[in-house]
Amino acid sequence: MEKFVYFFGDGKADGNGQMKDLLGGKGAGLAEMTNVGLPVPPGFTISTSACRLFYENGGRLPEAVVSEVNAAIQQLQSTVGKKFGSAEKPLLVSVRSGAKFSMPGMMDTVLNLGLNEKTVETMAQLTSNERFAYDAYRRFIQMFGKIVLAVDPIQFEQTFDHAKKSNKAKLDTDLDARALKEVCKEFKNIIKLSTGEEFPADPMKQLDLAVKAVFSSWNGKRAIDYRRLNKIPDDLGTAVNIVTMVFGNMGLTSGTGVAFTRNPATGDNELYGEYLPNAQGEDVVAGVRTAKPIRQLKDEMPPVYEEFSTLARQLEKHYKDVQDIEFTIENGKLWMLQTRNAKRTGPAAVKIAVDMAHEGMIDEQTALMRVEPSQLDQLLHPMVDPKEKITVIATGLPASPGAASGKVVFDPDLAEKEASKGEKVILVRIETSPEDFHGMVAAQAILTARGGMTSHAAVVARGMGKCCVAGCAELEINYDKKFFKTNNQTIKQGDWITLDGTAGQVILGRPRLMDPQPELNESFVKLMNWADKTRTMKVRTNADTPKDATVARKFGAEGIGLCRTEHMFFEGDRIDAVRQMIVGAADYKRFELQIQRIEGELVKVTSQQKIKELKRELVTLKKQIKTPKALYFGAIKKLLPMQRQDFVGIFRAMDGLPVTIRTLDPPLHEFLPHTEADIRKLAKKLKYPAKDLMVKFAALHEVNPMLGHRGCRLGIVYPELTEMQARAIFEAAAQVQKEGVKVIPEVMIPLVGHINELKLQETSVRKVAEDVKSRLKVSLEYLVGTMIELPRAALTAGEIATVAEFFSFGTNDLTQMTYGLSRDDAGKFLPFYIDNGILKEDPFQTLDQEGVGQLISWAVERGRLTRPQLKIGICGEHGGDPQSVEFCFRNRLNYVSCSPYRVPIARLAAAQATIQDKTESARTV
Amino acid sequence: MEKFVYFFGDGKADGNGQMKDLLGGKGAGLAEMTNVGLPVPPGFTISTSACRLFYENGGRLPEAVVSEVNAAIQQLQSTVGKKFGSAEKPLLVSVRSGAKFSMPGMMDTVLNLGLNEKTVETMAQLTSNERFAYDAYRRFIQMFGKIVLAVDPIQFEQTFDHAKKSNKAKLDTDLDARALKEVCKEFKNIIKLSTGEEFPADPMKQLDLAVKAVFSSWNGKRAIDYRRLNKIPDDLGTAVNIVTMVFGNMGLTSGTGVAFTRNPATGDNELYGEYLPNAQGEDVVAGVRTAKPIRQLKDEMPPVYEEFSTLARQLEKHYKDVQDIEFTIENGKLWMLQTRNAKRTGPAAVKIAVDMAHEGMIDEQTALMRVEPSQLDQLLHPMVDPKEKITVIATGLPASPGAASGKVVFDPDLAEKEASKGEKVILVRIETSPEDFHGMVAAQAILTARGGMTSHAAVVARGMGKCCVAGCAELEINYDKKFFKTNNQTIKQGDWITLDGTAGQVILGRPRLMDPQPELNESFVKLMNWADKTRTMKVRTNADTPKDATVARKFGAEGIGLCRTEHMFFEGDRIDAVRQMIVGAADYKRFELQIQRIEGELVKVTSQQKIKELKRELVTLKKQIKTPKALYFGAIKKLLPMQRQDFVGIFRAMDGLPVTIRTLDPPLHEFLPHTEADIRKLAKKLKYPAKDLMVKFAALHEVNPMLGHRGCRLGIVYPELTEMQARAIFEAAAQVQKEGVKVIPEVMIPLVGHINELKLQETSVRKVAEDVKSRLKVSLEYLVGTMIELPRAALTAGEIATVAEFFSFGTNDLTQMTYGLSRDDAGKFLPFYIDNGILKEDPFQTLDQEGVGQLISWAVERGRLTRPQLKIGICGEHGGDPQSVEFCFRNRLNYVSCSPYRVPIARLAAAQATIQDKTESARTV
Repeated sequence: MEKFVYFFGDGKADGNGQMKDLLGGKGAGLAEMTNVGLPVPPGFTISTSACRLFYENGGRLPEAVVSEVNAAIQQLQSTVGKKFGSAEKPLLVSVRSGAKFSMPGMMDTVLNLGLNEKTVETMAQLTSNERFAYDAYRRFIQMFGKIVLAVDPIQFEQTFDHAKKSNKAKLDTDLDARALKEVCKEFKNIIKLSTGEEFPADPMKQLDLAVKAVFSSWNGKRAIDYRRLNKIPDDLGTAVNIVTMVFGNMGLTSGTGVAFTRNPATGDNELYGEYLPNAQGEDVVAGVRTAKPIRQLKDEMPPVYEEFSTLARQLEKHYKDVQDIEFTIENGKLWMLQTRNAKRTGPAAVKIAVDMAHEGMIDEQTALMRVEPSQLDQLLHPMVDPKEKITVIATGLPASPGAASGKVVFDPDLAEKEASKGEKVILVRIETSPEDFHGMVAAQAILTARGGMTSHAAVVARGMGKCCVAGCAELEINYDKKFFKTNNQTIKQGDWITLDGTAGQVILGRPRLMDPQPELNESFVKLMNWADKTRTMKVRTNADTPKDATVARKFGAEGIGLCRTEHMFFEGDRIDAVRQMIVGAADYKRFELQIQRIEGELVKVTSQQKIKELKRELVTLKKQIKTPKALYFGAIKKLLPMQRQDFVGIFRAMDGLPVTIRTLDPPLHEFLPHTEADIRKLAKKLKYPAKDLMVKFAALHEVNPMLGHRGCRLGIVYPELTEMQARAIFEAAAQVQKEGVKVIPEVMIPLVGHINELKLQETSVRKVAEDVKSRLKVSLEYLVGTMIELPRAALTAGEIATVAEFFSFGTNDLTQMTYGLSRDDAGKFLPFYIDNGILKEDPFQTLDQEGVGQLISWAVERGRLTRPQLKIGICGEHGGDPQSVEFCFRNRLNYVSCSPYRVPIARLAAAQATIQDKTESARTV
Repeated sequence: MEKFVYFFGDGKADGNGQMKDLLGGKGAGLAEMTNVGLPVPPGFTISTSACRLFYENGGRLPEAVVSEVNAAIQQLQSTVGKKFGSAEKPLLVSVRSGAKFSMPGMMDTVLNLGLNEKTVETMAQLTSNERFAYDAYRRFIQMFGKIVLAVDPIQFEQTFDHAKKSNKAKLDTDLDARALKEVCKEFKNIIKLSTGEEFPADPMKQLDLAVKAVFSSWNGKRAIDYRRLNKIPDDLGTAVNIVTMVFGNMGLTSGTGVAFTRNPATGDNELYGEYLPNAQGEDVVAGVRTAKPIRQLKDEMPPVYEEFSTLARQLEKHYKDVQDIEFTIENGKLWMLQTRNAKRTGPAAVKIAVDMAHEGMIDEQTALMRVEPSQLDQLLHPMVDPKEKITVIATGLPASPGAASGKVVFDPDLAEKEASKGEKVILVRIETSPEDFHGMVAAQAILTARGGMTSHAAVVARGMGKCCVAGCAELEINYDKKFFKTNNQTIKQGDWITLDGTAGQVILGRPRLMDPQPELNESFVKLMNWADKTRTMKVRTNADTPKDATVARKFGAEGIGLCRTEHMFFEGDRIDAVRQMIVGAADYKRFELQIQRIEGELVKVTSQQKIKELKRELVTLKKQIKTPKALYFGAIKKLLPMQRQDFVGIFRAMDGLPVTIRTLDPPLHEFLPHTEADIRKLAKKLKYPAKDLMVKFAALHEVNPMLGHRGCRLGIVYPELTEMQARAIFEAAAQVQKEGVKVIPEVMIPLVGHINELKLQETSVRKVAEDVKSRLKVSLEYLVGTMIELPRAALTAGEIATVAEFFSFGTNDLTQMTYGLSRDDAGKFLPFYIDNGILKEDPFQTLDQEGVGQLISWAVERGRLTRPQLKIGICGEHGGDPQSVEFCFRNRLNYVSCSPYRVPIARLAAAQATIQDKTESARTV
């Protein structure tokens, strides 16, 4: 029969540290610590499978679980020599959730369970501290009422406030035992009025209700939100840990704290953390009181510090990873309450992984697996340019590194709303709580007035790799009037500020932010070297300018996977030439086709009348075609040298590496001016009637531009455009080759749906290449290939590969077409879909492997069947998403291509995919 | 070694009637007729494979072909006892193209080849008709110059006109032999000046050049256009037929004609055709002179008529199909020049097939295969309502049946242009020629002043199933001033007229046209019965109204495959209710979500300040939600009974048959008013600020509505909408069921991309069904299924089938997504693609089997793997396209669904697919 309850205490435990699936992280840690011989208060864990059964049972605990819990309580009572409800030695326990993956602040906890009218008195006697006992009691009733019995917490608050007023107490601690007793009575009354039942005095009844409440909290909204953000499956369930209470708030030889075996912000190898004397654990985590650094414990309680420090080392060695440890000191006795692998910033993760590998604690491959690729983002974040003159208006704790600017917003809802409009905001709160989570997600950075390095704001921000300055005490925040004051400044909602999360500074306005320089970070460089040694898949970058190309190369890009030529079209006064071309293009083509048709007819027609008509028409057409022809070819002639110069710069930057250049992709109307004034300006420049321009531009309007006249469809109707671009590419290649630069252009045709489209464009490109080669007397190495971004291209990949020398999956468009989903419009319902779990994740962020992925797998298979050496890459935004990179590796892609700042992430993700693959093959062999 | 040249003559031929691939239709017919013992002028055919070799050879005749041609000429000379270039008995031949499929008027012909300065004189002596000889000679030079030597034909025309003037000749026939001799001299001079070489006098040289010209004409623009329209592959090639000339223009005992063994317009079993005494064949085909009906031949040359009539019968029996025969009478001797299966109108095709089956000439299955499904269109075409008072302004030949109205246009280019703008036009020409083809395609109907039932206009119009009145002699057409006159009317370009192609009438204005009543056509009913007996795949219809449903049922629809509920939304003043709903919807949902969130937060929040804030917000929201809520639910309440009534009507019309109803599909903005005036009107009705409406409507704008908030995405965000529609469906079903109507609603969820979308909507629908069942105490049989119209739905069909009880392929959208092609925008480049052969056919007309088809095959396979009994259909416009119907049959679909008027076409196509499949299986067994 399945076992649901796992006991620990007296140096041995039913469970162990491997059993995270069943006992949750916390439960497994408690069992492991107990087994290792650490001082852990005895207790037991109800397994996650009991939680799953609870849900299957429609919210009831199965019989088997209940009876095992009863047995565990018996064992616990005899182990600690205390008893539930005993008037002599009452047993008090904490009830905490503990899932497989840590979900800070997301799950509910009940402390001091076991208190009732009788045991509270005993506690008062045993501690000789009636106030302590009744304060614990009223907290217990309040917490139990709110969390377990779902009583509106406002009533407790109001009653407590009222008690404070009538006792003329300023602080909570000003209330004496008598007053607290009265509060307890009133609290119990509230519960009776709200629930219709007496507050349960029986500890077993209390326990039963509390366990159910913990299980229920697994499906609370915040827990679900957290899981969604962190991609944790919904069906894992949580365990419940019932642990004998120890008290950190029994006086000055008591205390409680949280510590990391290494610095979780920098990775430095030093004990790092905080503690609060005479306090319960929740005081530290909530960040209500600012805690002392752990080193002060060395002075205040040297032996306890010594013991803790030794145990911490022991735990880190045992787990071979940095530990995040909760502890409590009860009357000078150290108790370990929890240990888990510590969350850490990206820089810390890198440093710790590399250091531990150097220390011999782990090997290189393990080190590589220790860093979440997306964490590298933090090493790549911008910082404030040191050359900027900045005005620091306040300083707080450097809670999460990086720098960011934004408009001040005090309300998380508003933050979310503004961000959804594309505004950059900084969320400023007195302190944050899980209710603020959505606002933190939306904000560029977070600033709090209260709370320490392990406060909610700090922990959550680091987890998201988001800049945060916490505990900035000098801030006076006025939520109502929507401003904050520092010593000498008033900042209103909507004003720009900048946070430097590395220095802990609040800066006025928006100074220039500087690109990060990860190449100066030794650990990073080392880790990246290991990654490059390990991975087999190449990483390229999407870059449209020599500057981007240079940055990406510094970040380790092994070529350009996507150079969008249209971005060049917008630069400077080129846009004028582009617009001129558009004005001429359609008319020129129309007249040209008509002339061809009439000339064709003239050869065949015999009727004298018809011949006269046709000739008259021909004369008219040849007059009409003049202006559009001049505009069209004139513009193309202007654009050629500009584009050539662009490519020269990029080829130089990528000397020796392949550069994939995509021919023009967006529909022409994207280049047009929108306001009437701008159209008039253009008309003047082109000496063209403004009215005609308006009509012409209106005609270019498309109902569904995403599915319209774009991609290779442009180059097919306007072959001169593709030819100009090809000429610019090959002439640039010839030019830099003469300088000694090695250049391998890969010309990429976008939006191919039918093999014939590719054939036509390929022929154009090759013709130009041959022409350039013979005219400039150079030999040029180049490839012609295509984007696979239409489902039809993927479906007919076998045929397309007869012409294409390479494929590059344009997964942005491929996702749009496969899902029938416009990225521009999905905002109207996609957030609703994600919020309601209809889709697990945004398919534009993480590749939809089930749908789009099938097309990719098929295209790779078919393409390689036709052309075994087919080069295949991906250049959609998914190229920088670790999950998607892993998918690409499994599908034997030659490379992924992503934005410059995501190149290191892709390099690491590719290495991890290789390691994972080896591990899996090893397992199956 | 391959044989390239096939001789026929003297009662035996190298080839036979089966060899159409190799000899073309004409060549095979000549060989077969010779073998059967018919009087055919001897000659030979150069095979289509020689044509293909000609192209492979870069436009040169291969050696082997040349030497076989030489040998054939020797054989021909000895057979007919004449010789190329002989001064005594010169051999003259015609050179004609002849492809596998007849391509009337599209290929070039050269007559009288073999004439030169010497042989023309001999001809003059032999016929004692110098004028005849020199007229033949000048025609030959002119034709040869234009077609073979590509000399600008204007020069010949001008020279000829000049000769007429200086000889004061009104008609061509007014020129005497002397004048014609002069013309010949000048024509030869033109050729020398144009080509730099003498006109070739050597008949062998003439032949060589002519054969090459015929081969080249295979890739002429008109031939390519014709093949595209008729879906004839480009690589078949054409054969060349070299036949001894016989002359129908040798006097009154000569003549030439074309006849059909049965009436090709009605199918009546009677010899039908025309002839011209003393004329060459081209005079008949070109329609320059109006021919006499064939029965007059009976009076003029009784024995010839008798012989012809017997031979015609013999040919029809031999070929077991109606024959289209060209013949020439040379001095009382009948020669058969060509026979081929006759083109015929739809009604004729049906009647002939059924008649021949009844006569025992063919079996039922052959009869079914004899009718092109698309030809049925002609039986289903509208006719002028007999109750209308019409003004017939002219009467011509009933060249192609049906009736159509349109604006008069004289120019084919203009016709094309106007039609592309959506205008309905009728092309009016003195006579048509292949140059006018594009205009005929674009027009609703064609009216000509000259030419008979076998004129270009008549043949082409019948082929296209397009109404045509030909040879309307009383018409006086003025191209220059753009009007035509009848006896008492002047009709200007742009005026509306109506043609009745069945009666041959030109009608003033646009009288009411009436739906066709194919159910009164006995042959049609019989053929359809045979089709239904044969086919295994069901045919349903797309119908949104009881009226459409009734029509479709009459046409044999076996259920509704697609009932679009949104069309109902536009009717009458419902659109007001729909707009009211839209005005309320978004705000209502937004406020509702906010209220839910705040209520959720209030339970958890403890801070007094926050609680106050939230409560204040809640009060505001509850005030704000009132108006939108009232609008939204008020509108839904108004719509429910209307929709229910719609369904009641449809269910009654489809008593006993399944009805697939699609829930709301288009984006909401499609229902909005567009002009400011209309918005103001709506605002007044709703008592809503017009300014707010404009802002609200602007917010609904989508960049790519095709990929936007539509389909099930609406029902998911606004579940009340789906629930209303489901309620209307089930309440209507319950209501008609009580009347004794058998009803099987199939609720179809559109635009599903992910299984979860379908799950949510299915749950909504089933909940409503259960509710209706229990409230109205009825039992209801129904299915819930989905459209497969997104590539992702097809790719994940296996999963989707776990929920869907049926699939219906929405191939319109599936094509759009798979190809990344918006139907609304493709007009900018798709015609260019088709014209240039980049795509063979419009993928919105004929299913793209290579691309979209793969998704369909995959989805069928995966869907049935999950749910073997899965019902699968297609409801895109491809459901009525014969090729696509055949694809659906091969992919084991249960049904196709198409517009009511295409139901018979789909029935026949489905039967043909079954027959073809049986034939193929029989072949492989």
